[in-house]
Amino acid sequence: MRQIRTDLAMESAGAAGGGSLPGVSVSEWEAGGVTMTEVKITTEEGASLLGKPTGLYLTMESRGVRRRDLEARKSVSALLGEELARLLPEENGGPVLVVGLGNRTVTPDSLGPLTVDRTLVTRHLFDAQPDLAARGMTPVCAVAPGVLGVTGVETSEMVRAVAEAVKPRAVIAVDSLAARAVSRVASTVQLTDTGVRPGSGVGNHRMALTGETLGAPVLAVGVPTVIYAATIARDAFGMLSGGEDTPEREQALDEMAKELLSGALGEMIVTPREVDDLVADAAAMLAGGINRALHPGLSEQDILTMMS
Amino acid sequence: MRQIRTDLAMESAGAAGGGSLPGVSVSEWEAGGVTMTEVKITTEEGASLLGKPTGLYLTMESRGVRRRDLEARKSVSALLGEELARLLPEENGGPVLVVGLGNRTVTPDSLGPLTVDRTLVTRHLFDAQPDLAARGMTPVCAVAPGVLGVTGVETSEMVRAVAEAVKPRAVIAVDSLAARAVSRVASTVQLTDTGVRPGSGVGNHRMALTGETLGAPVLAVGVPTVIYAATIARDAFGMLSGGEDTPEREQALDEMAKELLSGALGEMIVTPREVDDLVADAAAMLAGGINRALHPGLSEQDILTMMS
Amino acid sequence: MRQIRTDLAMESAGAAGGGSLPGVSVSEWEAGGVTMTEVKITTEEGASLLGKPTGLYLTMESRGVRRRDLEARKSVSALLGEELARLLPEENGGPVLVVGLGNRTVTPDSLGPLTVDRTLVTRHLFDAQPDLAARGMTPVCAVAPGVLGVTGVETSEMVRAVAEAVKPRAVIAVDSLAARAVSRVASTVQLTDTGVRPGSGVGNHRMALTGETLGAPVLAVGVPTVIYAATIARDAFGMLSGGEDTPEREQALDEMAKELLSGALGEMIVTPREVDDLVADAAAMLAGGINRALHPGLSEQDILTMMS
Amino acid sequence: MRQIRTDLAMESAGAAGGGSLPGVSVSEWEAGGVTMTEVKITTEEGASLLGKPTGLYLTMESRGVRRRDLEARKSVSALLGEELARLLPEENGGPVLVVGLGNRTVTPDSLGPLTVDRTLVTRHLFDAQPDLAARGMTPVCAVAPGVLGVTGVETSEMVRAVAEAVKPRAVIAVDSLAARAVSRVASTVQLTDTGVRPGSGVGNHRMALTGETLGAPVLAVGVPTVIYAATIARDAFGMLSGGEDTPEREQALDEMAKELLSGALGEMIVTPREVDDLVADAAAMLAGGINRALHPGLSEQDILTMMS
Repeated sequence: MRQIRTDLAMESAGAAGGGSLPGVSVSEWEAGGVTMTEVKITTEEGASLLGKPTGLYLTMESRGVRRRDLEARKSVSALLGEELARLLPEENGGPVLVVGLGNRTVTPDSLGPLTVDRTLVTRHLFDAQPDLAARGMTPVCAVAPGVLGVTGVETSEMVRAVAEAVKPRAVIAVDSLAARAVSRVASTVQLTDTGVRPGSGVGNHRMALTGETLGAPVLAVGVPTVIYAATIARDAFGMLSGGEDTPEREQALDEMAKELLSGALGEMIVTPREVDDLVADAAAMLAGGINRALHPGLSEQDILTMMS
Repeated sequence: MRQIRTDLAMESAGAAGGGSLPGVSVSEWEAGGVTMTEVKITTEEGASLLGKPTGLYLTMESRGVRRRDLEARKSVSALLGEELARLLPEENGGPVLVVGLGNRTVTPDSLGPLTVDRTLVTRHLFDAQPDLAARGMTPVCAVAPGVLGVTGVETSEMVRAVAEAVKPRAVIAVDSLAARAVSRVASTVQLTDTGVRPGSGVGNHRMALTGETLGAPVLAVGVPTVIYAATIARDAFGMLSGGEDTPEREQALDEMAKELLSGALGEMIVTPREVDDLVADAAAMLAGGINRALHPGLSEQDILTMMS
Repeated sequence: MRQIRTDLAMESAGAAGGGSLPGVSVSEWEAGGVTMTEVKITTEEGASLLGKPTGLYLTMESRGVRRRDLEARKSVSALLGEELARLLPEENGGPVLVVGLGNRTVTPDSLGPLTVDRTLVTRHLFDAQPDLAARGMTPVCAVAPGVLGVTGVETSEMVRAVAEAVKPRAVIAVDSLAARAVSRVASTVQLTDTGVRPGSGVGNHRMALTGETLGAPVLAVGVPTVIYAATIARDAFGMLSGGEDTPEREQALDEMAKELLSGALGEMIVTPREVDDLVADAAAMLAGGINRALHPGLSEQDILTMMS
Repeated sequence: MRQIRTDLAMESAGAAGGGSLPGVSVSEWEAGGVTMTEVKITTEEGASLLGKPTGLYLTMESRGVRRRDLEARKSVSALLGEELARLLPEENGGPVLVVGLGNRTVTPDSLGPLTVDRTLVTRHLFDAQPDLAARGMTPVCAVAPGVLGVTGVETSEMVRAVAEAVKPRAVIAVDSLAARAVSRVASTVQLTDTGVRPGSGVGNHRMALTGETLGAPVLAVGVPTVIYAATIARDAFGMLSGGEDTPEREQALDEMAKELLSGALGEMIVTPREVDDLVADAAAMLAGGINRALHPGLSEQDILTMMS
């Protein structure tokens, strides 16, 4: 079965036929103006159908975020904080390691590093003030390991080295994603307990970041910042050709898109004109959720004060 | 007659039927590995056919620039310097004013401000060292006036105010452009003696910068950093529908593209993934040409030393 | 009489003998944890004694700001907003022009440009929505004109050109200052109705920005980001030599400091190690006060939303 | 015996009495307009006298670098490349790991990260092109691990983790230094085979980076970007008090400086006004030397092309 190229499980599920797939359950609800979609892939068959590993994928979607509405961003941030807190493993004495994937100097790929910049780091304070845990804080460390072309070290190799050194209780990996639908760019947060898989992200990670490779559960958080240029081409084909959406037609469209994109166009990304601002917004929104989940004892004001 | 949306006169000419148009002459040659295309629009009929004012449009194209080849960039920089020097009006005691159009914080729109950062500014040195002219230097001032949404002042209003204050002999306006062909993004420089017209550029200028508005000849220099998303859609349509390229067919494709792009897609840009690096390259290349044209008495080494 | 080198009138007054000087009145009070000092120079004799033009100088001082306390910054921001609103001239249809002086790429001199980045610009919205005034908003434009060495245009020349174009009701000029006392660096805001005078600021302006030169009242706002290296030397001399603080002794110390600083040391600045963060804090604090003064009808939330 | 606070061994040696100290040899010569000073600490007695570990300290000094002269920077860069090449251990199949110490967002502490940005990274290319070694290239990886307050991970812990992962043949650690003499700020490069010791650098490293801790030889390269504020105070005292430079007098001056600096002044740094530019220059100069030492088969042009 055809798999469209997207980092969002909800889009894969939608394209593959929605909730009626074997080994896949999809549910959707509203919460504070945010549309939540939960995709659970429970069997290997479901994983194969969606091209994604088994596990939980939670998507929070809000058009207001794309329009840069502050309240909308706060709502998503709060929801992300709640869901992250729910998914974090039991306290075991180890810190939570926040990893910002991607390349700081490539704007649509810079979400991870920018989020790390806004994450409240506290691990180094716990030695001198062991009562911080009692005050509702978690020891947190945060790194932006850079990308292979810049450091000469595979991102996963770098994260594994840091994880071995700090023995984290959990890893939160933040990354720029690619979506299928234009409307989801910069308006959607995906949270998954399946880690980061090879080939995903704007920067195309070559190796997995998972519980197996890092020795601690990996929660991955991301926001789509680009769509594939092929998307536009396929939508154009689809619109022009009309007709029913059969697998044969889909395949024909895919092949045409592939041909169209085999040249220079294939290296292009499609992104909102104001991507610099939208990535900064998204980083603040994700960091807000992460900070709330990890430090429930601190008010937003406390966090701002400690960050500055 | 249909006009495609591009800031490159050579693309407008190509789409309209090339060199056989009334009031339009097109010639092309090679120089140092760079393809030069000269479009001259000599009559109002030609201007109307191409949707661009009468005047000279010179395009320098090199695939090596897009591949970030240093030699290719130097070749284009040298050619740009020669052509600029040829187009500059006679020395009249006034400075040359370099204007960097666009928004520094929107990467694909930041070419102008980044070029200004690399331009050797000398006007303030001439008072104390009047012999600089004899040493092959020109008094140069350079500003990046910002965009309306950021300053509350129309760009052209700001440039006009500065021009009134410094009474320039000529204005060189640098801007990010939009192209029609993917292959021309970040590989092509356009130099024109027609100034900057409303609606052009990535940031869509609302008012003209011309000899009439500024009181001095305006040379405009730009590099395409984006293509319109509509381009991909139209190419997809064209590919799928096959058939001859008749005006009727073109119009039909345009209308379909328009419909496709009426939603969220219309706000998207298509740009190379490494646009941050490519814009920085292009800014250095343009500034190199500008510095050579304005200070023929200085070696590259001298300029580097004075810039640092 | 000896004049110490400082951009803060309160320091000049303190060094010259405080409130007992002819033509100078000094008063001090507390407001919301902030120490307010008002220096009024009412005669030319007072101006000569303090080395500053006649007018009002209001200083807001809070140690918490230097410690990066968020509440302290909010208190100062609120007070600045009130005082600015009080000093602004009557509404006359013209916009308020906010000018960020200094060099964006020299950290201690970047306060002005960074403040402009955070100022809510609205002038361009009033054409389409003339009811904004009724909703408690002011038309605002904002520019960071750069410095002479970077643009080749004298800062005052540039500001004058913009002022001629937009005909402002008032100008608010923001600049980095130099202080005498270490404790005032990054902890103090000075607001004055006397404009910006030659030789002041970290970047040493060469020409005045005043009501006379700009055709509209000029309110100047600044925060000290550096002290002069001579300060430390003089304090060291004073400490070592002990004895009473006579004019003769002061002069002797000044001369020694001058000699000590005649070499490479004279080019050095003394600044807090975390100056990058402190300047960013100060820019947000000043912009907060400016935004409140100019848009009393908007909540902090509204301003954040419109800025993003 | 009194030890002045400086990261430059040549200053420690000068203050302690120069080349006549037991266990310390000092020699000085000129090379291409650059003053080279070699300090060898050969015994523990010498180490104790100078407050620095035994080993080689090579200083390259050029006033032209401080004046931003391009030729001077190239001369120092070339010399640094030669000396680094001489000190590198034999090829053993492992990569060279370049580590940029310090905090990217604190200008005077950002030399290490900025140098890493300009270092040619090649380790990831050797898998696909094993003949690169035969073409005079070395596998290089490069990281800027950030500082404890930002990551929650001790710098040395992070570097050790990366070193364990990549098994380097040698580590080159780049850091901002503090000097005693104003004239050496931004004009001097120190290269040592002793690694990085606790308490050194602008950011005050808490743990050592040495062959023992990292399992590979550590060459440390640095440029002073600040002087201690105490320096000015002490010079002022010394100038005022006159008299001979006896140990007792030195101690008295130190104590006074300490008292003077116990307050807010102690948190201040003394740095050139144009420190942003000088740090960028120094980073390019160091990276130039590192790139030449590690890739002797590449021309400057080749390196520029591969970096871009």
